[in-house]
Amino acid sequence: MNGYSIPKATLGRLPQYLAYLRSLPEMRHTISATAIAKALSLGDVQVRKDLAAVSGAGKPKIGYETDQLITDIESHLGCERLTNAVLVGAGKLGRALLDYDGFEDFGVKIIAGFDCNETALKKGAKEILPIRDIGAYCRKHDVKIGIITVGGGSAQDVCDKLVESEVEAIWNFAPVALKVPNGILLKQENLALSLAYLNNQISK
Amino acid sequence: MNGYSIPKATLGRLPQYLAYLRSLPEMRHTISATAIAKALSLGDVQVRKDLAAVSGAGKPKIGYETDQLITDIESHLGCERLTNAVLVGAGKLGRALLDYDGFEDFGVKIIAGFDCNETALKKGAKEILPIRDIGAYCRKHDVKIGIITVGGGSAQDVCDKLVESEVEAIWNFAPVALKVPNGILLKQENLALSLAYLNNQISK
Repeated sequence: MNGYSIPKATLGRLPQYLAYLRSLPEMRHTISATAIAKALSLGDVQVRKDLAAVSGAGKPKIGYETDQLITDIESHLGCERLTNAVLVGAGKLGRALLDYDGFEDFGVKIIAGFDCNETALKKGAKEILPIRDIGAYCRKHDVKIGIITVGGGSAQDVCDKLVESEVEAIWNFAPVALKVPNGILLKQENLALSLAYLNNQISK
Repeated sequence: MNGYSIPKATLGRLPQYLAYLRSLPEMRHTISATAIAKALSLGDVQVRKDLAAVSGAGKPKIGYETDQLITDIESHLGCERLTNAVLVGAGKLGRALLDYDGFEDFGVKIIAGFDCNETALKKGAKEILPIRDIGAYCRKHDVKIGIITVGGGSAQDVCDKLVESEVEAIWNFAPVALKVPNGILLKQENLALSLAYLNNQISK
């Protein structure tokens, strides 16, 4: 991961570019921003800006070297070194996130789930471990991100446990405002918000 | 729903205000923005702005009439008349969304799920119906929003079916760019994006 920040919207499109570039035949050594834009139904200017942010300007009339562009995007997504994450709360949403393997394209791997069950369970490809083991597990596996998918009532407790377990960032799906110490990143996810926005738009 | 738009961030906080106001004892006839801010650990200025957007200014030294404020927030969220939504794709994420009843606080009710199964299923509180019935069902129940939680491979097909079923808005969780006709609202949800953002921030 290099040292400067790129816009969140650009970051969101990088996996799309990456998937497309990886799907190209090996003989395709160069590619233009225009060709990528066309293939992905995106705006020409947008693609040009996105690629400039991660890989500088393409060569006039040639575009980008495909391999270099793939490497640059992977580097921005942090793909070459996955960040470990754990998830707490193995309900439907939790298990849906555990099973989703698209996060690795963004450089994050959810390596285990935790629940209040006393015994470890094997659900799909990933373990569900008892919550009392979370501190030792996170330290052992250098876990940087904790994902909270428990109900609102126990979310702050879980959050405190994750902070004690030395994660650096919390991604919270519980519908409550969490308190975290300074220095811990907190991202509140509110799925209902997108729906409210759509509803607000169509109801006019 | 009244005729003007409020910022998305404000919209996102309205259910929080609503839940708090509804939890107050009945004898509490008035409340100040400061008291609400304190109770919810939010900034004073932010709460003041949010409430001004939905209910005008509070009275000096008194604040807002609680009942009126509740009515105004409900009106902005469209609570008095729920918009019907359906969901297609009853996998883990789909079923997690079907079971989540917090959407109604935002004025939207997911009334049924659809899947490619041939027979109707009863999963939790809501029906899962065969996809071939979706057109008739949506017209009969005046469904305005379609939620897509199928895999990327069939998402465009499902989207086309929803558009034929006369929904006005699509909320897409499949990791593909969908094409919709003019006049149809499309909101692309990308759960990995938040995670990528956190990862990008902590990796510096």
